[in-house]
Amino acid sequence: MAKNFSTREENYSQWYNDIVKHAQLAENSSVRGSMVIKPYGYAIWETMQKELDRMFKETGHENAYFPLFIPKSFFSKEASHVEGFAKECAVVTHYRLKNGPEGIVVDPDAKLDEELIVRPTSETIIWDTYKRWIQSYRDLPILINQWANVVRWEMRTRLFLRTAEFLWQEGHTAHATETEALAEAKQMLEVYATFAEEWMAIPVLKGTKSPNERFAGALETYCIEAMMQDGKALQAGTSHFLGQNFAKAFDVKFLSKENKLDYVWATSWGVSTRLIGALIMTHSDDNGLVLPPKLAPIQVVIVPIYRKEEELAAISEKVKTIVKQLRSKGISVKYDDSDTRKPGFKFAEYEYKGVPVRLAIGPRDLENGTVEVARRDTLTKDVVAMEGIENHIESLLEQIQINLYTKAEKYRNENSRKVDTWEEFNVEIEKGGFLYAHWDGTPETEQSIKDETKATIRAIPLDAEIEDGKCIYSGKPSKFRVVFARSY
Amino acid sequence: MAKNFSTREENYSQWYNDIVKHAQLAENSSVRGSMVIKPYGYAIWETMQKELDRMFKETGHENAYFPLFIPKSFFSKEASHVEGFAKECAVVTHYRLKNGPEGIVVDPDAKLDEELIVRPTSETIIWDTYKRWIQSYRDLPILINQWANVVRWEMRTRLFLRTAEFLWQEGHTAHATETEALAEAKQMLEVYATFAEEWMAIPVLKGTKSPNERFAGALETYCIEAMMQDGKALQAGTSHFLGQNFAKAFDVKFLSKENKLDYVWATSWGVSTRLIGALIMTHSDDNGLVLPPKLAPIQVVIVPIYRKEEELAAISEKVKTIVKQLRSKGISVKYDDSDTRKPGFKFAEYEYKGVPVRLAIGPRDLENGTVEVARRDTLTKDVVAMEGIENHIESLLEQIQINLYTKAEKYRNENSRKVDTWEEFNVEIEKGGFLYAHWDGTPETEQSIKDETKATIRAIPLDAEIEDGKCIYSGKPSKFRVVFARSY
Repeated sequence: MAKNFSTREENYSQWYNDIVKHAQLAENSSVRGSMVIKPYGYAIWETMQKELDRMFKETGHENAYFPLFIPKSFFSKEASHVEGFAKECAVVTHYRLKNGPEGIVVDPDAKLDEELIVRPTSETIIWDTYKRWIQSYRDLPILINQWANVVRWEMRTRLFLRTAEFLWQEGHTAHATETEALAEAKQMLEVYATFAEEWMAIPVLKGTKSPNERFAGALETYCIEAMMQDGKALQAGTSHFLGQNFAKAFDVKFLSKENKLDYVWATSWGVSTRLIGALIMTHSDDNGLVLPPKLAPIQVVIVPIYRKEEELAAISEKVKTIVKQLRSKGISVKYDDSDTRKPGFKFAEYEYKGVPVRLAIGPRDLENGTVEVARRDTLTKDVVAMEGIENHIESLLEQIQINLYTKAEKYRNENSRKVDTWEEFNVEIEKGGFLYAHWDGTPETEQSIKDETKATIRAIPLDAEIEDGKCIYSGKPSKFRVVFARSY
Repeated sequence: MAKNFSTREENYSQWYNDIVKHAQLAENSSVRGSMVIKPYGYAIWETMQKELDRMFKETGHENAYFPLFIPKSFFSKEASHVEGFAKECAVVTHYRLKNGPEGIVVDPDAKLDEELIVRPTSETIIWDTYKRWIQSYRDLPILINQWANVVRWEMRTRLFLRTAEFLWQEGHTAHATETEALAEAKQMLEVYATFAEEWMAIPVLKGTKSPNERFAGALETYCIEAMMQDGKALQAGTSHFLGQNFAKAFDVKFLSKENKLDYVWATSWGVSTRLIGALIMTHSDDNGLVLPPKLAPIQVVIVPIYRKEEELAAISEKVKTIVKQLRSKGISVKYDDSDTRKPGFKFAEYEYKGVPVRLAIGPRDLENGTVEVARRDTLTKDVVAMEGIENHIESLLEQIQINLYTKAEKYRNENSRKVDTWEEFNVEIEKGGFLYAHWDGTPETEQSIKDETKATIRAIPLDAEIEDGKCIYSGKPSKFRVVFARSY
């Protein structure tokens, strides 16, 4: 199975690339750093979008759309934001082409007075807009989300994980009080954690970021961190408490109930197509992609096994009923009766594409009233009665969803450990995983640890226990452990 | 009602701008030509997207995503395409900013070897991709749609109708035969027409474009044209039969069943946020926006009428049941019990925002078991029994949907007429509407008519009757009438 492709053991990075390519999720385009998301990969994103969108709306958010282009000067308005964002980005300088002697050229007469930046994130253009929308406390809160493409010029790209252009959602909210904004930032972290755990079947560590890893312009960045199968961490979502930084940068004040002018409080939060990378690296195996049923574009595939046309006709007749029964349960089913490929090829293909359940039906099954049911997660097979198959499959899909989560959680727990000395840290970081260690709280120490080991603080866990300890690097006193890891 | 806003009679253009602004649909941003789509406007777009997406999937299409940026050289590959598209567009020339003495500046060292164009449409980047996907007839057809933002640098912009950046969907299909591609282009025209008529309640004329108005690179452009209330035409959707032009430009060949190499046949088709402009201008009146129920974000608003808190409590209790009953019918309801605005203000606001049905309930209604039901389309009111109100409203919404269509159709028919002489044409074109006239079939004649009257051929109707006639301009023989109008 999947014999021409790399295993995790042989070459983890190649294994990932093979899955993205051969499971038809995405590919590189002719534009350096920009990917093409293929229909099968995009279908996963659509399911994610649908579910996240429902969760955002249930928590009171509305969607809107803001411009792709941001005037260059906007980035200078929030001092720390410019450092973090305005550097590696696509710059639009002209607005016209014309015919030259050797083909089309940029028209030098069509130079923009002020260059436009293709949005790497939208805080600045949105707060410039909110300034017009907010006068009084009656205009607050504003709870808006945007589904959009963003561009960050990356030199070393990796499909889904790091590309110049990617798709995401970005929530941007405005509040009258600090308390309310903080509550919003925490609420959205919970939404992301619920989505990751219940839909993606990925256990996540909830925490805050250290100043070095914080979003440029935020006072606090909440994050969910997942562990990939090579022991590296992957940041799966962030929710920022922005304080009054952007309100001050864009001069957005409101008249409070007490008739006082004050700056507005802000949050922003986002997840992106990067989640598809996390999904792949959490569950997949050496046989290809493994998808949690709740996000699988095809949950069940049915393959007929036959020699003669009459056999196919009889099987297809029976399958019609099964498809109907499964769809009545809201299960997405594909019946693959194409005659150009043999069952063995089909089995291999759907296995590689991570379809959670495969049914095979042959003439003998028709006689016996049975179906062969194969699970993608365990690669096990069972012969099951056709009668009531829809209930069997429904509960099987739930089991698979839980099993994937449990397996991922077990892996994460096995690769999470406490480390108390610098020597130990240096040994353990090579093995991968999450290292819970004491840190003296200074950016300098974090930077030194990063320089020496490539590990960063992935999160300061929200549920960190208070205990007396000493920083593994400086030996200075510390009150709780933070989580170090190498990361994507 | 809406007393500070322009009427259609006074200033049609200002009337449109007032509705877009005061019904909270969209506004201009700080980026010239780029709009902010506000939550209420975006909610309409989301409903449109949802329905169109369902129709695309039912006709066998899948979604995918292609890069925002297109290498400049790609536009030169299809000769007529470059003329039509590669001129007024946003050009990315650099990929980095840096700190200069007076703030951030474009880093001259980060100049791209080849400029990137922000997509004005995606044929070129998609056919560059399809080249990698297509080898044999087994790889065909490819039926893909993309939801995306596109940029066309416009000097004179108008919210929704003409902006530098807008949102749209673009379908791009690849086929083994001409027949199949033609059938696809026609099928998608029918999908658009059905959507316009059944969902937007806008009657549309189906036809093909003259060579002057055809999409750059197409062999045939199918279109739906709608008539606005000022008698101008608005192109509401196009579906292009591209022949083998893009396959030849990007060298996309396939091995047929007969083992012969041939170029692939193509179509592309799209509708955009422009449809929201069409929606506004077709149904709205001097009291503001009018929305067809099927696209209204809020279909029913309920306003309590009370003096005392106890009255509000009693009304709210009853409204709970009504809301539940309406939602059980899939109707979207808003109960506005905010105490900061008086009922009169609320009535005016929801009327201006085009909410199809308004219910008002006061203490006397509770006594009598009645509700006041107001229709936005006719501005009429009725007192209706609370018992079975959900059935009444359900059928009322259907009536409103039909009434809007019928009204728009009547307006269009009254403003469509045959014109047989050039003198008559010059008089009639000033009155607006669709003029059915004979044309000699030459681009030169169409251009002259446009130069002299600002009217263009909006469509060559699919159902044009064959009759002998003479071109209104040149007097040369003609076999059928085409539709002239001034347009958006």
